[in-house]
Amino acid sequence: MNNSFGKLFSISIFGESHGKAVGVVIDGCPAGIDLIQQDFLDDLIRRQGEIKGTTERKEKDIPQIISGVFNNKTSGSPITILFDNKDVKSEDYENIKDTPRPGHADFVANKKFNSFNDYRGGGYFSGRLTVALVAAGVIAKKIINPDDQNIIINAYLEKAGGIKDINKAIDTAIISNDSIGGIVKCTVNNLPIGLGEPFFNSVESLISHAVFSIPAIKGIEFGSGFDAARMNGSQHNDTIINAKGTTSTNNAGGINGGITNGNELVFRVAVKPTSSIAKTQNTINLNSGDIEKLNVKGRHDACIALRMPVIVESVTAIVLADLMLQE
Amino acid sequence: MNNSFGKLFSISIFGESHGKAVGVVIDGCPAGIDLIQQDFLDDLIRRQGEIKGTTERKEKDIPQIISGVFNNKTSGSPITILFDNKDVKSEDYENIKDTPRPGHADFVANKKFNSFNDYRGGGYFSGRLTVALVAAGVIAKKIINPDDQNIIINAYLEKAGGIKDINKAIDTAIISNDSIGGIVKCTVNNLPIGLGEPFFNSVESLISHAVFSIPAIKGIEFGSGFDAARMNGSQHNDTIINAKGTTSTNNAGGINGGITNGNELVFRVAVKPTSSIAKTQNTINLNSGDIEKLNVKGRHDACIALRMPVIVESVTAIVLADLMLQE
Amino acid sequence: MNNSFGKLFSISIFGESHGKAVGVVIDGCPAGIDLIQQDFLDDLIRRQGEIKGTTERKEKDIPQIISGVFNNKTSGSPITILFDNKDVKSEDYENIKDTPRPGHADFVANKKFNSFNDYRGGGYFSGRLTVALVAAGVIAKKIINPDDQNIIINAYLEKAGGIKDINKAIDTAIISNDSIGGIVKCTVNNLPIGLGEPFFNSVESLISHAVFSIPAIKGIEFGSGFDAARMNGSQHNDTIINAKGTTSTNNAGGINGGITNGNELVFRVAVKPTSSIAKTQNTINLNSGDIEKLNVKGRHDACIALRMPVIVESVTAIVLADLMLQE
Amino acid sequence: MNNSFGKLFSISIFGESHGKAVGVVIDGCPAGIDLIQQDFLDDLIRRQGEIKGTTERKEKDIPQIISGVFNNKTSGSPITILFDNKDVKSEDYENIKDTPRPGHADFVANKKFNSFNDYRGGGYFSGRLTVALVAAGVIAKKIINPDDQNIIINAYLEKAGGIKDINKAIDTAIISNDSIGGIVKCTVNNLPIGLGEPFFNSVESLISHAVFSIPAIKGIEFGSGFDAARMNGSQHNDTIINAKGTTSTNNAGGINGGITNGNELVFRVAVKPTSSIAKTQNTINLNSGDIEKLNVKGRHDACIALRMPVIVESVTAIVLADLMLQE
Repeated sequence: MNNSFGKLFSISIFGESHGKAVGVVIDGCPAGIDLIQQDFLDDLIRRQGEIKGTTERKEKDIPQIISGVFNNKTSGSPITILFDNKDVKSEDYENIKDTPRPGHADFVANKKFNSFNDYRGGGYFSGRLTVALVAAGVIAKKIINPDDQNIIINAYLEKAGGIKDINKAIDTAIISNDSIGGIVKCTVNNLPIGLGEPFFNSVESLISHAVFSIPAIKGIEFGSGFDAARMNGSQHNDTIINAKGTTSTNNAGGINGGITNGNELVFRVAVKPTSSIAKTQNTINLNSGDIEKLNVKGRHDACIALRMPVIVESVTAIVLADLMLQE
Repeated sequence: MNNSFGKLFSISIFGESHGKAVGVVIDGCPAGIDLIQQDFLDDLIRRQGEIKGTTERKEKDIPQIISGVFNNKTSGSPITILFDNKDVKSEDYENIKDTPRPGHADFVANKKFNSFNDYRGGGYFSGRLTVALVAAGVIAKKIINPDDQNIIINAYLEKAGGIKDINKAIDTAIISNDSIGGIVKCTVNNLPIGLGEPFFNSVESLISHAVFSIPAIKGIEFGSGFDAARMNGSQHNDTIINAKGTTSTNNAGGINGGITNGNELVFRVAVKPTSSIAKTQNTINLNSGDIEKLNVKGRHDACIALRMPVIVESVTAIVLADLMLQE
Repeated sequence: MNNSFGKLFSISIFGESHGKAVGVVIDGCPAGIDLIQQDFLDDLIRRQGEIKGTTERKEKDIPQIISGVFNNKTSGSPITILFDNKDVKSEDYENIKDTPRPGHADFVANKKFNSFNDYRGGGYFSGRLTVALVAAGVIAKKIINPDDQNIIINAYLEKAGGIKDINKAIDTAIISNDSIGGIVKCTVNNLPIGLGEPFFNSVESLISHAVFSIPAIKGIEFGSGFDAARMNGSQHNDTIINAKGTTSTNNAGGINGGITNGNELVFRVAVKPTSSIAKTQNTINLNSGDIEKLNVKGRHDACIALRMPVIVESVTAIVLADLMLQE
Repeated sequence: MNNSFGKLFSISIFGESHGKAVGVVIDGCPAGIDLIQQDFLDDLIRRQGEIKGTTERKEKDIPQIISGVFNNKTSGSPITILFDNKDVKSEDYENIKDTPRPGHADFVANKKFNSFNDYRGGGYFSGRLTVALVAAGVIAKKIINPDDQNIIINAYLEKAGGIKDINKAIDTAIISNDSIGGIVKCTVNNLPIGLGEPFFNSVESLISHAVFSIPAIKGIEFGSGFDAARMNGSQHNDTIINAKGTTSTNNAGGINGGITNGNELVFRVAVKPTSSIAKTQNTINLNSGDIEKLNVKGRHDACIALRMPVIVESVTAIVLADLMLQE
């Protein structure tokens, strides 16, 4: 099940950038949770990013609830949500077929699927599919946070282009017909102790698995992360200061032995600069074997990382919902 | 199946640090591959690390092949490999029960398993279990590299304590009764184009899932990794220079859209400093609720990262074997 | 993933009888297979059954291909097929809410999902969902039977009401305002030797798992089946008569040790009589706790087994496609 | 994971009839359940069958608990149980290599595994492996039946050779150097309402999947089973007579829509006659392609069905434990 994720709470995504629709089937949502179309809108709008630095293509991301909801509550059967594709300009992408865009999946998609892939706008590889992740995340957030528990997932863009003045970094990129990467930081507060498993289903394994499912992610680190490689044990060990397991520092990022320890869960992800840029680039023509000049058409983000916080939150919520349903 | 990993080539690990044995069941190995006890020894010895900076506990890591091998070849049925635990000093660990060691899983194990966990030497959470990963990795390497294909996985300790003079970093840690972290770099050459899937089973998702199953890992980055967050798209995009997909740079780390692109697969992992150190530390007494002084007994590595290259290679091979069997 | 089935070729079904649509996501179909709407129609019409003995509700079962097909060929990404629900009379079913219909899932659905289930027409439990199985089966049949292989799956209604004159059995049931069960026999010819696994993924395990996913199935037997319980070993053993493994008899039903042996795969399934009948029945009122008279409204089949052959073929094809993709 | 079964409570079996050992890894057993070697003995002895009609090979089926148990309680980590193979006469089986025994998996094993399979005594295909199922079943029974719940699984041999006088049937078979099949009936009482899922994880799907994992099973039927195919709906529908869902009849066998309804779970399985018989049989010589006479050596049961009740109970308990842990 290559296009599904999760054990008890599992999602299956489908659709292509320029096909009829993209969508998601969500399996394992408990019955009786309030769910209406309106619930999805805030996160869907967050995914569309800020005006500056994101593309002009503003889908009317209207979630159609096809199944699994009855009388405005989840019914216990699989929930299907569809997003029609309306605002597509397929002609912009016709040349992808033979001249793969640098940094994109065009080349590998062509090879893996023997040229049968839908290459328009990246097809199934498109960032458009993340709308399905966000929709599933909205439901996952409801599962992990019944009113009285107060589990809060929060992700934000910490840096772009290596600096904290994110507007400035993006302006610079736009002026130079270029794009810029960024760092997203995500925290989760008030998690119970004991989620996750010692080895293969460690919380880090599951979150990293989910996060690297998002296009454009290049790295992930938990707690002290790569800094840990430069530290001594006496610096790095977090001292437990009470019977609830609170620690004086949080180099562990809220996880020991793969399992949540009750402290804040913290991780950071590295987002690469948008691959589609306005500058002319070189690539290979798969038919002729010649190097050609390529102008990537279509509308593109200067900083794809702007859209990432809500997507990172969503996949984190999906992992946590699955783990919490197993308890 | 919380303690298993893989779809067609899958492994299940078991055992506790101070129990009778640790081991692994390997399911999905094709029939007819040469396999004898001797084949495991090189990697098992690599896992025991260098003399300096690793513990004095040198298990006779003798792999016992219990099933799945007939006339020195794999038979197609599940392969089981056992490692007896002989050199254990359980009394060293008795105080773990009430006073969790900082940086270890003692506290969460106690909570998750309601005090029924085998706490001796970390029990199931022990790094001892990585011997099972290495044994499975030996078989995985055979699967992905039949004689004529030349797929080479190579991992090495790039830095310890932030410097490339690894001996010096370890000496410093030992002198100060402390430990030190490190960075392991792993490359894979000559992979076919097309392994992996667009989203949930991206190569990065699967490798990170497997790598974070190893205790002590804090971060992973592919290709340009965290540097990508500071780069422009025009710098980061790798130009395809021929019809085989060779790129002029390799910021992608050999992966586009979750799928191998035929260039070198490259990733780095951050390893935290060994949690067990000779210095006296504070911790909580779970019975009394008081802060106590703790001297962690037992024998411990000054730099657990020294053992990591072969373990990282092993889990990488396990992922790749699974992907290659799906093609 | 409770509503999915299959390892490499896997399907996820969704929808409710009286919701917007029912459908299926099909994951793992190889790229490059011809697929158009027309391909589904024959099997969809077979599923609607003969005029006599099946309900008057004739959905326009028009499959909408939402994703995974490009230029009339499968693209390698997940295939989604939707069937709109148009011809529904929800008011017929309103009383299901409190007075569960005998033989149906109304009572358990209410209990399992804490009354949040969509009870209209059985909701997600409806036989309507089998349209999704048939659609997936059409694709599975294409996978297992590229032109040159000639693997033929054939199921038919062998008996109804215990007799081979099926028309007569159904007429009798209709006249008495009742319904009748039946036996479906399924054969598969020209399968390769070696599909399936010794224990948990035996061909019998997988086929029975899939077949019992179809509502109304009460039993399954392979080859000699229940007759085997009365036979001697000397009668039952099939003698191998040539090096291809052809046997003189086929009590094994084409399977030894869970694995196809190259002879005809044969199994039979028992289908219960339709639960919805025109006769007045007693049931409990879940609100009052009283016994009440119940007249089941809506339109119902006199013999649901009439629709079963194509559904049994479909799930068999789904199992075989998954197994063949693993070879 | 072809040799594993279960989602939250999952088992992986391994070993060959004439190898070092057979065993099982049990993943997902909750921590804190009492478990000692003695707990396994009753069911292991039941599996060895009655003296009459079962083979003389009486392994000392001594379960060695390798992992997952600490201070006589389950610890929450994977439980591994090994059974050494001691009483083996491999020379009895040498001729299997070239002359496959009728009714056995010898032929398909040879083909599937390209002659690399361990053919001695059937290797991994041997009924010997059912000792691992029984061991896992002992633990599963403890999970589903904490003291106060009173869930009782009971299986027994209902008929052998078509008659209820089982001793007579077996005597007849022994006298004629032959073997005989049988019917095992299994019931489960006091199950909660709501176990199982509507389609792919219906209780019938899961139990049949598990039951057909046992060698020699030819059919399964739930409740009315194959009789349902001859019945009218008005006869077959079970009337609900109270708010707890008790029904006046139990044609459903305790399951509606794939989900337990709180009434007795009932199913029957057909067991074929033992394939190994003392009579001389014909088979093919795989080397020469000639038909040869074959005398199957070794010790064999006249009625393998005698051993089946405890094995059927075991796999049923494994399914139910997995389902109950999901609630």
